[in-house]
Amino acid sequence: MTSGNASGRRAWAAVDIGGTKIAAGLVDDTGRILERTRVATPAGARAVLDAVAGLVHDLCLHADRLGVTVRAAGVGAPGVIDPATATVRSATDILPGWAGTPVGDELRRRTGLPIAVANDVRVAAVGTAQDPAVAPHREVLHVSIGTGVGGALLRHGAAWPGPHASSGEVAHLLVPAHGAIPCGCGRRDHLEAVVAGPAIAAAYAERRAVDVLPLTEVVGRMRAGDRGADAVIRAAGRLLGRALAGLVAAVDVDAVTLGGGVALNVVEFTDEARAAFRAEALPPLRSVPVLVPATGADIALLGAARLARGAVAGHRRNDTASAGEHA
Amino acid sequence: MTSGNASGRRAWAAVDIGGTKIAAGLVDDTGRILERTRVATPAGARAVLDAVAGLVHDLCLHADRLGVTVRAAGVGAPGVIDPATATVRSATDILPGWAGTPVGDELRRRTGLPIAVANDVRVAAVGTAQDPAVAPHREVLHVSIGTGVGGALLRHGAAWPGPHASSGEVAHLLVPAHGAIPCGCGRRDHLEAVVAGPAIAAAYAERRAVDVLPLTEVVGRMRAGDRGADAVIRAAGRLLGRALAGLVAAVDVDAVTLGGGVALNVVEFTDEARAAFRAEALPPLRSVPVLVPATGADIALLGAARLARGAVAGHRRNDTASAGEHA
Repeated sequence: MTSGNASGRRAWAAVDIGGTKIAAGLVDDTGRILERTRVATPAGARAVLDAVAGLVHDLCLHADRLGVTVRAAGVGAPGVIDPATATVRSATDILPGWAGTPVGDELRRRTGLPIAVANDVRVAAVGTAQDPAVAPHREVLHVSIGTGVGGALLRHGAAWPGPHASSGEVAHLLVPAHGAIPCGCGRRDHLEAVVAGPAIAAAYAERRAVDVLPLTEVVGRMRAGDRGADAVIRAAGRLLGRALAGLVAAVDVDAVTLGGGVALNVVEFTDEARAAFRAEALPPLRSVPVLVPATGADIALLGAARLARGAVAGHRRNDTASAGEHA
Repeated sequence: MTSGNASGRRAWAAVDIGGTKIAAGLVDDTGRILERTRVATPAGARAVLDAVAGLVHDLCLHADRLGVTVRAAGVGAPGVIDPATATVRSATDILPGWAGTPVGDELRRRTGLPIAVANDVRVAAVGTAQDPAVAPHREVLHVSIGTGVGGALLRHGAAWPGPHASSGEVAHLLVPAHGAIPCGCGRRDHLEAVVAGPAIAAAYAERRAVDVLPLTEVVGRMRAGDRGADAVIRAAGRLLGRALAGLVAAVDVDAVTLGGGVALNVVEFTDEARAAFRAEALPPLRSVPVLVPATGADIALLGAARLARGAVAGHRRNDTASAGEHA
């Protein structure tokens, strides 16, 4: 399925596998997204792999029409990805049957392309590092607030996985609060139990004694003047900022970046987080910028394209598992 | 004041400046402590410097008698030490007038020796890294629990300071508890407000409605069967372990080491911390060892000796400020 026009400008198939949708894009060497496509995430690991292969196939056809050549695919996927085998080492329930899937080998077989796979939050972090406001910073803590809470530590633009591929996992930081729903690990006094999107939505439902609404609806109510919605969203942002102030003293970075659906779409949340960070950080750390990249939702595709480039360059990034070009 | 026997085996003057005492030792290249000496910490920065110079002088005289040569002094000191100037950038009230003191230059002038200076917790961390049980680990989080709470991140045996010289500062991690006394920064829901020695002593006094006793007395009561003492000490250890489980998921290390007076002397505290860490850490991190080095209180001197060696080798360690050999 390699793009036919082997002599054209090179491009990269970038894929972001999420719990509800799979997004994909054709990205050129300058980071321009030439084409976008997406499908709803099907049930089952095999169906997910087939869907990804289908999207990559479509992007290759589109590349042919543009006279560019897809050289490799980069894939951000949920779960802990084994760097040696590009297999899902463990995963939550977000994709049933996902744990154990040899994503790299299966996609290489289906597409004939070199494949690079990494954890989705790490991929977004790598994309974030390419943002002009972030690129000058050497040590960066990327924190993703969406359906769950995750993160990555970037050193010189590359995600540093740590000895257990856990580095940047901020979900389980203790917090002085009791979440409306449990953290993914089951505890209530962890950061994820308070600041993840579903936790904010549940806190609103609890406060108003109503059924749980989607977070977008809670945000809409806040903007329409609902003080209860405003209070729960701002309280979550504040707690995130306080937790990050404590964490950044321990890890010490040049910048913090925020990503994920909640951070990218709810400016009131990120404003509170930033203000609380500045109020609570140690004096030398108060000037550490807390950035939300302007590239927004594209960071996942830009990060996946960067991974794909690494797969072809032959240098495996230390955060990436790649199945080589020998297909 | 350089030791006269310039042709003898080399040795190092190691100094640990604390709030109540200044300890010093003569250390050889194998890490053996040939001589120890100490004085009570006097009042005022100038008096502290004079006292350190006096201890180093005594060690040089002792070195002469042993036929070894003191080549440099390594100093662990409270506060944030500017790596470029070996000056105290900031300090808490532990040593009045300490902030702004050009420790490196002043001691070089007084002793004629090359001087290396670093934050005392960082120095202890470097000493800890030389412990046989710790040395094989590449990425280590060292946490010190004493009068205050501090720490350091070690990468390959060297303390990594981070962009703001803050790396490893775990005192301000948020915790789901309200300390009996405030953290050094004034807040009550920070780790230091709950697990530092004075915080444990204050929690016991609050529980028993008695005047605050020294922690050693509280520990004595625990060992004599006082259940209230047992409860406050174990609760503090448990909270430390839980906080470290959350932090280690984010920083990801090969091992955690504990130091400081509380950790080195209260095994009930460290046992609880270890058990809580294992119970709450993510599964892949449960096997991360939480070590209390057998070298115990000597780690500060061993770390300072290592720093001194770095000052002479001419390669400034990235955690160390040194005043060169050109005196």
